[in-house]
Amino acid sequence: MNSLLKDTTVGLSLPQPYLLFLGDSTELGFAKTASGLVDWAPDRCIGEFGLAGCTVSVGLPRMTPAQGHAAGARALVIGVANQGGFISEAWVAALVEALEAGLDIVSGMHSRLETIPALADAARRTGRQLIDVRVPPPGIPIGTGRKRSGKRLLTVGTDCALGKKYTALALHRAFVARGIDADFRATGQTGIMIAGRGIPMDAVVSDFEAGAAELLSPDAAPDHWDLIEGQGSLFNPAYAAVSLGLLHGSQPDLFVVCHDPSRTMVLGLDNYALPSIEEVIDMTIRLGSRTNPAIRCAGVSLNTSALGAADAETLMRSEAGRLGLPVADPIRGGPAFEALVDACLA
Amino acid sequence: MNSLLKDTTVGLSLPQPYLLFLGDSTELGFAKTASGLVDWAPDRCIGEFGLAGCTVSVGLPRMTPAQGHAAGARALVIGVANQGGFISEAWVAALVEALEAGLDIVSGMHSRLETIPALADAARRTGRQLIDVRVPPPGIPIGTGRKRSGKRLLTVGTDCALGKKYTALALHRAFVARGIDADFRATGQTGIMIAGRGIPMDAVVSDFEAGAAELLSPDAAPDHWDLIEGQGSLFNPAYAAVSLGLLHGSQPDLFVVCHDPSRTMVLGLDNYALPSIEEVIDMTIRLGSRTNPAIRCAGVSLNTSALGAADAETLMRSEAGRLGLPVADPIRGGPAFEALVDACLA
Repeated sequence: MNSLLKDTTVGLSLPQPYLLFLGDSTELGFAKTASGLVDWAPDRCIGEFGLAGCTVSVGLPRMTPAQGHAAGARALVIGVANQGGFISEAWVAALVEALEAGLDIVSGMHSRLETIPALADAARRTGRQLIDVRVPPPGIPIGTGRKRSGKRLLTVGTDCALGKKYTALALHRAFVARGIDADFRATGQTGIMIAGRGIPMDAVVSDFEAGAAELLSPDAAPDHWDLIEGQGSLFNPAYAAVSLGLLHGSQPDLFVVCHDPSRTMVLGLDNYALPSIEEVIDMTIRLGSRTNPAIRCAGVSLNTSALGAADAETLMRSEAGRLGLPVADPIRGGPAFEALVDACLA
Repeated sequence: MNSLLKDTTVGLSLPQPYLLFLGDSTELGFAKTASGLVDWAPDRCIGEFGLAGCTVSVGLPRMTPAQGHAAGARALVIGVANQGGFISEAWVAALVEALEAGLDIVSGMHSRLETIPALADAARRTGRQLIDVRVPPPGIPIGTGRKRSGKRLLTVGTDCALGKKYTALALHRAFVARGIDADFRATGQTGIMIAGRGIPMDAVVSDFEAGAAELLSPDAAPDHWDLIEGQGSLFNPAYAAVSLGLLHGSQPDLFVVCHDPSRTMVLGLDNYALPSIEEVIDMTIRLGSRTNPAIRCAGVSLNTSALGAADAETLMRSEAGRLGLPVADPIRGGPAFEALVDACLA
């Protein structure tokens, strides 16, 4: 178990600090790796680097690779994802520029850096490293559905990229602040970069998806909590397989539904309406009860980043009343979030 | 599209006829590759070869590798699967014996033949081939959920290994017999060996699972039918991720539920009860309607191999009455099966 997790223990051994690459992104939702690092590992991030067409920012000083290196950066982290996790052709020249400026490249994309000839050549020529974080450990077993000891909470969502990782990290921080023995379990590239370990669940072969989730949160002390980062959505026509394998294998006692009230359609699929929070609760209980009949919804995490403080407060209260559940925005924190933590531990 | 499918076109180019390897299997459910080849490609199968502990048979003459080679066999096909698709340590000596007897080895297991040093060495020494069928084509895209033209039927199940491939093959044969333009779409190793093409869905990385299913049944003429081989079960705690990705990506108009009435617990997981047929219908419609709101259940395929003809007939009638759906055993055929085909084409 530990040796397998150690294979993905890359956080502390990654060259740092980071310059964050934002590519040609025009939608902040696709820059979640960069955003996550800025919010949860700010001491490792010194600047951002976007192409000419890039219209998003994660609030760091803009730097070229050469300026970043001069400011102390040792790696360019690909902080942006497109649909499918491919390295875009349009990025390659900039990545070569980074290698030539003396930076290693850290990637959580599906496609391996070394398979791109221009990058492999430049890395050899400059003596720099190409580091892929999105590589599952070897020897993942088939799932068994066996009940494990310890307690588990999984964040689920109405869609991708709306707060499942943030919510699990914030709950982990809050649990630890209350003196509870807890681990954050990372399931995606950014989470792994933040936590220093985890399993990139969307890169696991589908037959082993539930088994990988079982491996991720092993038997633990009865009062230990695993806060497991969710992936995708059961209602996403591209990624639901990842979500269901993670749900079955995590066998969560609790789940928190993550939702962005400003989003009405599935990210990147404009012909698919977002499911309602109630639909997600119902489907998660129906499917999750297969491996944990005691599964229940602890509450809702609303991503209110598109709203002002007063509007956010009003919305959270009305949603809490409507659903009969604690509703909070972990980024805003406050009493609503403490009430959500209370509900998890009740 | 065609070039990707061509990458998995292995049926006709495989060395043949086959000697079928049954390993140390004691449960016929795990020998489904051998059974499938005997039933749907009997002209390519000349014998079976089991280890000392093997208690199952697929009805072919027992032969050693040397006897098989003398009788004309050119390949040993691994016709048995364990949980997870690993090459068992206990099989390796027998596989080396087959290579030394002059047979190539064809495998649909997850673990690649060439990664087992004793096999790689023996293949080099004897000049024989190690052929892995369970390799997905390169370049599978992320799913889009886009509605495709043509009609699709997916076989789903209450569990693994109880007739989803058989049912799709039998329906394909019946559709073609009625003059309908139809393709059988193989999603597992045996189906691919029978059809000569397909995608091994359980070997696809989970993020691409729905995309692979979309690739498998491309746009077609409005009256063309794809009969798609199902995988696993939405209720199987190990494999549901495969089933859901296949369901979403297949966007079936129709599904047929496959069930073995003699089975009460999930194969290999004695602490998990089989879901009811009604639960499978309900869950398949709920999840499948995400990519095809018109999805409906055409009927039930009962695997009555454990029953006599009269008992099977009685059971099929009572189940049809109880469920209000056509119920047939495609292996028995007859009027009940013709009624199921009628219901599919209604």
